[in-house]
Amino acid sequence: VTAPSAKRSDVTVHQAEPLNLEPPRRVLVDHALTPTDAFYVRCHGPVAELDPTAWRLTVDGLVERELELSLADLHARGDVREVVATLQCAGNRRADLEEVREIPGELPWGPAAAGTARWRGVPLAGVLADAGVGHGAAHVAFLGADLVEEGDPGQPFGASIPLAKARSPEVLLAWEMNDAPLAPSHGAPVRLLVPGYVGARSVKWLQRVTVTDRPSANFFQARSYRVFPPGDDPDRAPADHGVALHDLAVNSAILAPGDGERVRAGRLEVAGYAIVGGGRRVERVDVSVDGGASWTLAELLDDLGPWAWRRWRAEVDVPPGRREVVARAWDSAADQQPERAETVWNPKGYANNAWARVRVEAEA
Amino acid sequence: VTAPSAKRSDVTVHQAEPLNLEPPRRVLVDHALTPTDAFYVRCHGPVAELDPTAWRLTVDGLVERELELSLADLHARGDVREVVATLQCAGNRRADLEEVREIPGELPWGPAAAGTARWRGVPLAGVLADAGVGHGAAHVAFLGADLVEEGDPGQPFGASIPLAKARSPEVLLAWEMNDAPLAPSHGAPVRLLVPGYVGARSVKWLQRVTVTDRPSANFFQARSYRVFPPGDDPDRAPADHGVALHDLAVNSAILAPGDGERVRAGRLEVAGYAIVGGGRRVERVDVSVDGGASWTLAELLDDLGPWAWRRWRAEVDVPPGRREVVARAWDSAADQQPERAETVWNPKGYANNAWARVRVEAEA
Repeated sequence: VTAPSAKRSDVTVHQAEPLNLEPPRRVLVDHALTPTDAFYVRCHGPVAELDPTAWRLTVDGLVERELELSLADLHARGDVREVVATLQCAGNRRADLEEVREIPGELPWGPAAAGTARWRGVPLAGVLADAGVGHGAAHVAFLGADLVEEGDPGQPFGASIPLAKARSPEVLLAWEMNDAPLAPSHGAPVRLLVPGYVGARSVKWLQRVTVTDRPSANFFQARSYRVFPPGDDPDRAPADHGVALHDLAVNSAILAPGDGERVRAGRLEVAGYAIVGGGRRVERVDVSVDGGASWTLAELLDDLGPWAWRRWRAEVDVPPGRREVVARAWDSAADQQPERAETVWNPKGYANNAWARVRVEAEA
Repeated sequence: VTAPSAKRSDVTVHQAEPLNLEPPRRVLVDHALTPTDAFYVRCHGPVAELDPTAWRLTVDGLVERELELSLADLHARGDVREVVATLQCAGNRRADLEEVREIPGELPWGPAAAGTARWRGVPLAGVLADAGVGHGAAHVAFLGADLVEEGDPGQPFGASIPLAKARSPEVLLAWEMNDAPLAPSHGAPVRLLVPGYVGARSVKWLQRVTVTDRPSANFFQARSYRVFPPGDDPDRAPADHGVALHDLAVNSAILAPGDGERVRAGRLEVAGYAIVGGGRRVERVDVSVDGGASWTLAELLDDLGPWAWRRWRAEVDVPPGRREVVARAWDSAADQQPERAETVWNPKGYANNAWARVRVEAEA
């Protein structure tokens, strides 16, 4: 196990092979930028161990010139930049959906399958401009180095994003995370970073960038990472029944207190994060201890820009007894999270953005 | 009353002065593009009657060159284009919020305060490029010709949008709607068109475009058109308690059958529209006649592009008795509408995107 995160004894190992790690919630509360060793790790295949000096990126498809770029080529470009961005796993908060109904074969992520880092790299847009985007181009597809048996058939992990997003300046070919070279578990030597999208599109161990006229036919774009209607069998339903995930809908999580925690009745500090994609902003977070009958406005902490979560805190009055603490975020479209996990439930358990809820036992 | 819409006997006149008209729901079902005489009209002040030959648009603020443009100047530009776009009033579907709690002083719009048209004009982006956007620019503000007493103090209706949106190619200085010159009630001779945003930002009778470093201080941007928390008095609360509306959150409406309609039990055709802003797409509409326990996937009709609503239809089985028909839309971020109007309710009654509901009396 090569992930730095695995060195922490407080990390939840959802799976060892492929490696899937979730940090403790408290660490996310305590840091504006998530320490790399507490950043969730989501893999579908083995962690690739690539020689950075031998690494090459192929840029092909509907381009005027195919490119083959080394890490040194990327470093030498004039447009190196940093972006602070949150990645959120499509399965983040799945555990709450599993309380509604079982989701067999998927990992029971809590609300810490999300983290925020400072990423350094070059905009994909500049590399695409160098290659010359050709007529009919509409999407850009990506392939990693990890051969994934879960794909049907087995294939490297892949994804695609619309060309307009690929040309947005926040989308990076990234080689640094929090001022250090990428760890193997985070996609070294170079990964794609697609801020505002589900983590699955930020392909690790990037090998190939292909400009195309349609979305990728890779298993993880064409079949998986889709929100199917509740009654569908996602292995058999027509793919277009499922909504292919990209932009993140507004979401929030309560990181403290923990679910089931015993607390002192009276003033209680509640803390968490809220996030939304699409360049929208988190505008407000409300916290309730009476099931939504009344709400306390949370304080929004450090503003890290349009691609990062907003951490928040609130103080609420909790009467003695078993209580549920609820949080909901609003974005700049005045969109709020759905109230109940029951209405969000879907066969693969993706994109849970129902109101965040933790139960506490408040002692007088 | 100069609005073409007022010639229809079936239009609801919410207010005669200022003019506020809502068409019958059935018309919106029957047309992919809303006939101009059935397009909602929202005014805060008198309908301006401007001489198109005398009309001039001033472009100023943080620009390298101030411009003064005539309608002929706009017509003569090389970048004239058409955009099919839906406008949705921020108060659309307010009537459903008023069933939760009264909203005094606001118009009780039903779900037909939205319409889709083909708009012809020139991208604002090109005009801004000609003026030369200066250092520190971050927003673009707009002023109309209508003096509005409701403003505090009285002032022309105004708005602003972020510079990035102003530079997006779908934002037009528009002079035609459905292949005819704009009617006075729709902002003749030239209005702003901001697809994907609440209608209030598409300033009518446009007089002035001002590049600025901050959002407009105009009453309708700085104080009104904000979603305040339920407990706030919006006239007194700090403005930043309210979320200033721009991008539309995912929304839908049931246009047929009508609320309270008697229908035949058995197969029932349900029809409506769904919409979302931000360039997101409507991906799915679900219809339920059992309160959300089971859902029928609606058929999505003509795709008019990323800035237009998606009309839909579904056939459901309705048992005899009093029934509620429910619809919810999902967008390309897998975001769905909130379930209950109670959680959407806000003091000014804006941006109602709760599940659409109509009651029917199904006769055996």
